[in-house]
Amino acid sequence: MEKLKEYVSLKDEDHFYHQGAVELLIFNFLLILTILTIWLFKNHRFRFLHETGGAMLYGLVMGLIIRYVTKSPDVESGTVYECEKLKSGPSTLLINITNQVYEYQYKREISHHNVNGHQGNTMLQKMTFDPSIFFNILLPPIIFHAGYSLKKRHFFRNLGSILTYAFLGTAISCIVIGLIMYGFVKAMVHIGQLKQWEFHFTDCLFFGSLMSATDPVTVLAIFHELNVDTDLYTLLFGESVLNDAVAIVLTHSISIYSPKENPNAFDAAAFFQSVGNFLGIFAGSFAMGSSYAVVTALISFMHLTKFTKLCEFPMLETGLFFLLSWSAFLSAEAAGLTGIVAVLFCGVTQAHYTYNNLSADSKMRTKQLFEFMNFLAENVIFCYMGLALFTFQNHIFNPLFIFGALVAVFVARASNIYPLSFLLNLGRKQKIPRTFQHMMMFSGLRGAIAFALAIRDTDSQPKQMMFTTALLVVFFTVWVCGGGTTPMLTWLQIRVGVDPDEDLKARAGSQSEPNLDKNTTKAESAWLFRIWYGFDHKYLKPLLTHAGPPLTSTLPEWCNPVARILTSPRAYGDQLKDGDTVYIINNDELTENYESSAHIVGPAQDSTASTQATGKEDIQEGDLGLGGYKLQLQHTAGQPQNSLA
Amino acid sequence: MEKLKEYVSLKDEDHFYHQGAVELLIFNFLLILTILTIWLFKNHRFRFLHETGGAMLYGLVMGLIIRYVTKSPDVESGTVYECEKLKSGPSTLLINITNQVYEYQYKREISHHNVNGHQGNTMLQKMTFDPSIFFNILLPPIIFHAGYSLKKRHFFRNLGSILTYAFLGTAISCIVIGLIMYGFVKAMVHIGQLKQWEFHFTDCLFFGSLMSATDPVTVLAIFHELNVDTDLYTLLFGESVLNDAVAIVLTHSISIYSPKENPNAFDAAAFFQSVGNFLGIFAGSFAMGSSYAVVTALISFMHLTKFTKLCEFPMLETGLFFLLSWSAFLSAEAAGLTGIVAVLFCGVTQAHYTYNNLSADSKMRTKQLFEFMNFLAENVIFCYMGLALFTFQNHIFNPLFIFGALVAVFVARASNIYPLSFLLNLGRKQKIPRTFQHMMMFSGLRGAIAFALAIRDTDSQPKQMMFTTALLVVFFTVWVCGGGTTPMLTWLQIRVGVDPDEDLKARAGSQSEPNLDKNTTKAESAWLFRIWYGFDHKYLKPLLTHAGPPLTSTLPEWCNPVARILTSPRAYGDQLKDGDTVYIINNDELTENYESSAHIVGPAQDSTASTQATGKEDIQEGDLGLGGYKLQLQHTAGQPQNSLA
Repeated sequence: MEKLKEYVSLKDEDHFYHQGAVELLIFNFLLILTILTIWLFKNHRFRFLHETGGAMLYGLVMGLIIRYVTKSPDVESGTVYECEKLKSGPSTLLINITNQVYEYQYKREISHHNVNGHQGNTMLQKMTFDPSIFFNILLPPIIFHAGYSLKKRHFFRNLGSILTYAFLGTAISCIVIGLIMYGFVKAMVHIGQLKQWEFHFTDCLFFGSLMSATDPVTVLAIFHELNVDTDLYTLLFGESVLNDAVAIVLTHSISIYSPKENPNAFDAAAFFQSVGNFLGIFAGSFAMGSSYAVVTALISFMHLTKFTKLCEFPMLETGLFFLLSWSAFLSAEAAGLTGIVAVLFCGVTQAHYTYNNLSADSKMRTKQLFEFMNFLAENVIFCYMGLALFTFQNHIFNPLFIFGALVAVFVARASNIYPLSFLLNLGRKQKIPRTFQHMMMFSGLRGAIAFALAIRDTDSQPKQMMFTTALLVVFFTVWVCGGGTTPMLTWLQIRVGVDPDEDLKARAGSQSEPNLDKNTTKAESAWLFRIWYGFDHKYLKPLLTHAGPPLTSTLPEWCNPVARILTSPRAYGDQLKDGDTVYIINNDELTENYESSAHIVGPAQDSTASTQATGKEDIQEGDLGLGGYKLQLQHTAGQPQNSLA
Repeated sequence: MEKLKEYVSLKDEDHFYHQGAVELLIFNFLLILTILTIWLFKNHRFRFLHETGGAMLYGLVMGLIIRYVTKSPDVESGTVYECEKLKSGPSTLLINITNQVYEYQYKREISHHNVNGHQGNTMLQKMTFDPSIFFNILLPPIIFHAGYSLKKRHFFRNLGSILTYAFLGTAISCIVIGLIMYGFVKAMVHIGQLKQWEFHFTDCLFFGSLMSATDPVTVLAIFHELNVDTDLYTLLFGESVLNDAVAIVLTHSISIYSPKENPNAFDAAAFFQSVGNFLGIFAGSFAMGSSYAVVTALISFMHLTKFTKLCEFPMLETGLFFLLSWSAFLSAEAAGLTGIVAVLFCGVTQAHYTYNNLSADSKMRTKQLFEFMNFLAENVIFCYMGLALFTFQNHIFNPLFIFGALVAVFVARASNIYPLSFLLNLGRKQKIPRTFQHMMMFSGLRGAIAFALAIRDTDSQPKQMMFTTALLVVFFTVWVCGGGTTPMLTWLQIRVGVDPDEDLKARAGSQSEPNLDKNTTKAESAWLFRIWYGFDHKYLKPLLTHAGPPLTSTLPEWCNPVARILTSPRAYGDQLKDGDTVYIINNDELTENYESSAHIVGPAQDSTASTQATGKEDIQEGDLGLGGYKLQLQHTAGQPQNSLA
């Protein structure tokens, strides 16, 4: 007995020592292979297979090996035990087996039909990791990095179009995919491949919403490498960033849409509740993300007051920045909102306010840290996607459904891009050319978000079919569309080798010539931005950064005592210091925006005048900004290269 | 039914959405608090509470809140279910509860007496995370960073003493603690607090080995801030780094020591098997870590050959460096060796070879990345230690045992430091002064490693008592000894404000004066290092870095074809390039070592001569090295400030 016990504890400890090490090692190995491959490809300027495609391929091969080479069938698994005493599934279960108590932790609920799938080997089970790891650990850095590296100037110039594609386009895409899939499902029911009650229209819409999240990371990496036209790049990048957020919230809203009676009939009340949910969750997540960013900005801003100087400890600064940004995500999740949306807007706001308050060292540290985390997380996800094809145990391959999904995805992309571009071109003076539309159509890749949304729920048979299909659509689009980007660019004769800075200057120059009136493009949204920029410049910037006029001059006189406390001492006199690039983006942006709006609409000139009235240093500041901007932009431009390329 | 099902899936999804987010958020919150506190302390130059002490304190408070404020007792937990059909614990258990199948994952085996401890609330259970996370994710960056930031020159000057303290000292400490605890256990048995059969002498030794891992992170941080005498710093740092490795392997060896008959009787065969295990595991882990580092060096070295240039992609370089270092850890774990030892020597070897091959950008990136990871991991562990006091459910507080442990830890430290210092001083010409010995005695803090080793196994009652005791010893030493460091330094009148570079130069200068013969300190180990440095300089450096003489001149003539391929083109002619600081550490180190050995022993001069014979550029290289070295050293010196302070 003594002997046996010792043997057991020895075995147990052994189990303990290797726990997780092998699985992590497999991922490390795949990532190392991927990095070596990228290195090779970069050397040979080989652009047909992007690193993410490579990671996926290696994952696939490894999955194949794990599935068919390692065979250690666990005889016990696959057997369902009855337990009459239990009434619900507790989070921890203690079981007495041959006089030894074992602790089991709740993992998930599984349907009866999935039980057979569990007869596989333990290695496969171990390689299938918890979807919550995706959402809590792998996705946040990717999304944050996207928000953080958003090129604000180009983004805002095309904001109207980007918002249209992201919100309206995603909704269209979702509905079109849903309808087409419903048609296919009906056909499948007709030929007896599926039972009627298994697949509701809401399930189809759910599939539509998750398949609407585009992830053109491959395309954007190539775009950046080739310096493709900045407007096209911005449109695609902006659309894909916002579109992820929209698709995630949409999926969540649809999943909680619960009509009272017949799930197939349209229930207006439930529908409006879902719309309300969508808006509520989106707004709430936006607020959560922005407020965390504002808190970070406030803390990092404090470093100029006499009390303390956080910027002297770049490690602490970086740590705080990192932790607060991640907290934005986690708080939103904990509050039942969407963490991804929160962390996206947190990133955008951090880039706008906090980044300017950071010390030079911290700026680089945070940038490199998020770049690195983004790089790792992205490749882990793509490796895992490859692995999942063979290691996930409950795949349901239905050729008709897969074919339907491929058709639906392309039709939906087409009915998103072309009609919306047509509508946008009615308003835009600087049209979105046909070639751009074709390229955007072609760049509708599906990636990490679609996969993560699909893997979140793989309990019922329809959901498993959706997961399998989503995975295959990701494979297809990443390899085929991703690989075809360079030939497509050549074929469509889209200009490459554009310097984004020069491009912008050329446009700014052409704006002052009266015969070229491209300016109305911006006029459409000018009124909204005048208000926002005025508010931002007058109140938020001085409150959260060292830029802008002192609050004492912008706030009403009776607020002076408060204003004096809140304004950075730098805002008063330090503005003329040269080499001070801290608040350059802000003022330059402002200058550019006021400039452009001043040329177009009347009332804008008033606000320009009022800005100038705040003090002469403001103009000089603008000059300084324009001079220093190149540096800043090159900095920003250099960013996505490392992250996406 | 339909309704219910939907409700269930809704509830399930809700469960899903927040899974892990709240727990992670709590840690984030604690870390943010810690960072803000450090910031405050740094401003007020407050050195009585180090960040790790602060993190622990916040963890403690949070644990208290979680335990007594959140009350959601799970009625189901704590009940043990019988299962006659099962013969052993499968890794996954499927259970049918009211017609719904739930999947449960094997967590651990628990003793019968622990079952009651599980009647706590679910929040507590969630906050108690898997010890494998410590070992696979949190510890590696800390240990790697320690190895990576080891100041090699100072380390090698004191290597003999450091090795003595680390190996012999840890063994002494382990045995002394084991013996004292065995005495206390006997006393407890005598007064009826414990049953004889529960606690063997091997258990006491196990406790002794885990309590022998010192972690003077607090002390070293203060030392660095105050620039305490470099020799004292190096002795403590070197000892603690190696001592962790020794303690871990020792704990492992003792845990698998299984005498054949009476567990209390001494079994020579089993003892020697344990010693063999110790040596085998140590050597194996060392080999594993070093070989990964060599592979990394080879890959990063390849960037000078015409084929490819990895240094042009600093992100890939950093990624590869990070992944290969982590793989060293994981491979060792997967092979049944000790990952911590592997990653430590991987770090040392990376710093020696790979670091020099990295691009300037990658050098900074890797340094900052590991610094940051070290900072986060360290604070997470200390937060968790604070939390564990209240959230861990099976504490066994035994005042006598705790008192015994405190006594044992201090007696063991004393019988480690004082006798060994006495013996070392017999051999050393440059004695270790009494004040240093007192300071080293006082700096015997226990920290992350002791905690991690104790939490690894908390299944039996003795192990739980050990865990509780280890935790309290950590609290006591971190707060009392950590807080008392500055007063102690003042009291012992140990010199502060020493520039490590100047210090070394002063010593080097004094060496050339014949009347001061401190040199014999190094003479003891000179013969070993002459061989090693000769080999390293002639074969390894040229093979793995751009430094050293070309292989064609060091290898026998018949190896020339191979040598020509393997030697970096830089090794032939590029060595005179100015501003090229890549291979500076190596040559300077070499110069210093040859210099010092040349002054002492006869045969060393031969090897110096042979080095010079390889070509004149070698001497110039040395000069260049000496000029550039200052910069390098300041760089290295700046490193621990951020990581430890």
